[in-house]
Amino acid sequence: MKAPIEFSVTATEGSARTGIIRTAHGEVSTPAFMPVGTRAAVKAMSPDELWEIGYRLVLANAYHLLVRPGPELVREMGGVGRFMAFPGATLTDSGGFQAMSLAKINSISEDGIRFRSHLDGAPVILTPESAIQVQEALGSDIMMVLDECTPYPAERDDVRKSLELTARWAQRGLRARSSETQALFGIVQGGIFGDLRRTSAGQITSMPFDGFAAGGLSVGEPKEAMLEMAALTASMLPGESPRYLMGVGTPADLIAAVGMGFDMFDCVMPTRNARNGMAFTSAGRVSIKRAAYQRDAGPLDEKCGCRPCRRFSRAYLRHLYLSGEILAARALTEHNLFFYARLMREAQAAIASRTFRAYANSVTAAFQDGDAAE
Amino acid sequence: MKAPIEFSVTATEGSARTGIIRTAHGEVSTPAFMPVGTRAAVKAMSPDELWEIGYRLVLANAYHLLVRPGPELVREMGGVGRFMAFPGATLTDSGGFQAMSLAKINSISEDGIRFRSHLDGAPVILTPESAIQVQEALGSDIMMVLDECTPYPAERDDVRKSLELTARWAQRGLRARSSETQALFGIVQGGIFGDLRRTSAGQITSMPFDGFAAGGLSVGEPKEAMLEMAALTASMLPGESPRYLMGVGTPADLIAAVGMGFDMFDCVMPTRNARNGMAFTSAGRVSIKRAAYQRDAGPLDEKCGCRPCRRFSRAYLRHLYLSGEILAARALTEHNLFFYARLMREAQAAIASRTFRAYANSVTAAFQDGDAAE
Repeated sequence: MKAPIEFSVTATEGSARTGIIRTAHGEVSTPAFMPVGTRAAVKAMSPDELWEIGYRLVLANAYHLLVRPGPELVREMGGVGRFMAFPGATLTDSGGFQAMSLAKINSISEDGIRFRSHLDGAPVILTPESAIQVQEALGSDIMMVLDECTPYPAERDDVRKSLELTARWAQRGLRARSSETQALFGIVQGGIFGDLRRTSAGQITSMPFDGFAAGGLSVGEPKEAMLEMAALTASMLPGESPRYLMGVGTPADLIAAVGMGFDMFDCVMPTRNARNGMAFTSAGRVSIKRAAYQRDAGPLDEKCGCRPCRRFSRAYLRHLYLSGEILAARALTEHNLFFYARLMREAQAAIASRTFRAYANSVTAAFQDGDAAE
Repeated sequence: MKAPIEFSVTATEGSARTGIIRTAHGEVSTPAFMPVGTRAAVKAMSPDELWEIGYRLVLANAYHLLVRPGPELVREMGGVGRFMAFPGATLTDSGGFQAMSLAKINSISEDGIRFRSHLDGAPVILTPESAIQVQEALGSDIMMVLDECTPYPAERDDVRKSLELTARWAQRGLRARSSETQALFGIVQGGIFGDLRRTSAGQITSMPFDGFAAGGLSVGEPKEAMLEMAALTASMLPGESPRYLMGVGTPADLIAAVGMGFDMFDCVMPTRNARNGMAFTSAGRVSIKRAAYQRDAGPLDEKCGCRPCRRFSRAYLRHLYLSGEILAARALTEHNLFFYARLMREAQAAIASRTFRAYANSVTAAFQDGDAAE
């Protein structure tokens, strides 16, 4: 049987690597950032714009599509990629994270996660098996196994129990899978306990997943703990499969994680922050609200080639933002996603030319300054 | 002195005509619909999209730009067209209509309109002279003179007094003008009293304006009264200048008004209705909310070539709308503005080939059916 996805590493520098994931819906160059298309739409963006910026893989949330419009409708419409008219590949999460964080009432048992829809209170149970069925209906190229995302802070004993449950759910998810064209990734948990991370990584990587993710990070723990756990997890994941760091992060975090050997990322930061008036630029973070930009005829980022930077002044963007215009959300989101796409392209090129270490230092410097100025 | 705009009629059929307005920022084919860019942005649209759909002239509201970001800032940024990065021509209204309808407290005197900004309560006085100064700072290609928009219903005696004030303000507006590159249009009032419309038209058309508008319509009067007054006003306006019917309207209204000899139109209907889930289609009005579209894989309008119709199913658009996604507003707005642009292009072609009467009948039939079905 042909594997649902194929991954090949094309260059390495230290632990960092660049490669290609081949899916049923095209090729994805890695390291790759995935814009978050929560409800089968990346907020404020059109699918054509995502494609033009260079994205070939976007994420959609199974939980949101489960409660509306429902996985069977998406299946009828040709799967989530076709439904949202995105010509590239798609990844869906399992739905577990949102079932715990968004649903009105929820409880976890050995069987799965029981919750009531945040929309209409309808009772739903998400099991390792149904999470696969939902994602097979959604038709994503990469599915994620149902896990229990360990909260922060958590007691060591609770974390240990949680990762054991995650391991049993991982086995059930693998058994439930029936699609031959959709990949399935396992997820390593373990909180911020290094030995538990290692235990979980050992359990999950012993199972025949098509790729492996580090989950349960960026959930409130200190930045240093996140980076330590990410590096430790990356070192335990097999080199021949894609490595996905879930829910991370800032430009500096992404580049640090690329340096650890991660290949895939997702985060709402570029899109959510854009809607709050925050832009990532080559000089660091910029808040478009600043009075200093009131009469500023220059672009958001002098070094950026995105369409908003070629068209709009900071003065105009500030006016749009203060006026609550949809175009403000559009322009800043497009800019931020362009920035993240460029970051990944530059990282790929740097690894290929073995200049990644210097590149990583320059990104870290820009964003330490920028973050401090904010 | 060269006129700020040049207008030439290229074909006629009955009272309907097609022509070209030449401005300092390019040519505009008429009849032309102007999308409303209230705060120097057409809600949910990018300037590139407006251009690609075929718009060469957009409207911005002087009142909104007066209260934020202020006309001097827009002047510094190169004028409203450059500020909003629209490569075509722009028209601004005088600000009077919004000063009366939106401002917190307002009063009209011989001098002008006193009001408090709806944003911060700051006191402002808009006079016939300052309305010109504001628009000259905004740098629009076509300015509108300050008028008193007569409300509906109104007593005959009040309407008569109001149009006399409008005539005196028109004289003052003409005297205040200093730009040689910006056209200035006069506005005919008179409520729904035919003789008063004729009086006002006689007064205003005796003044050296570059174009003439019918104002005070579509403010609540019965549709038949609107159409009667529009036709009467059009018949009183000189043929060698552009004729602008302000604030109108539905596709059927626009085509009726083209038949009367109007050349220019503006209305928030295609953009505002889009944000409320309503689309104009070749089969009439469509509400995307309808349960019938839940599993409908077809496009919004089978006969439409706009990008949303080429990409998205009704099922997806309905999902986006129910989810409150920005992309719903974007897609429906783009579709409706594409529809309005096509309507004007088809009207131009029909007049040029002397088939306008038949074309007008087909539009009226589609929208009578469509409106009834809604």
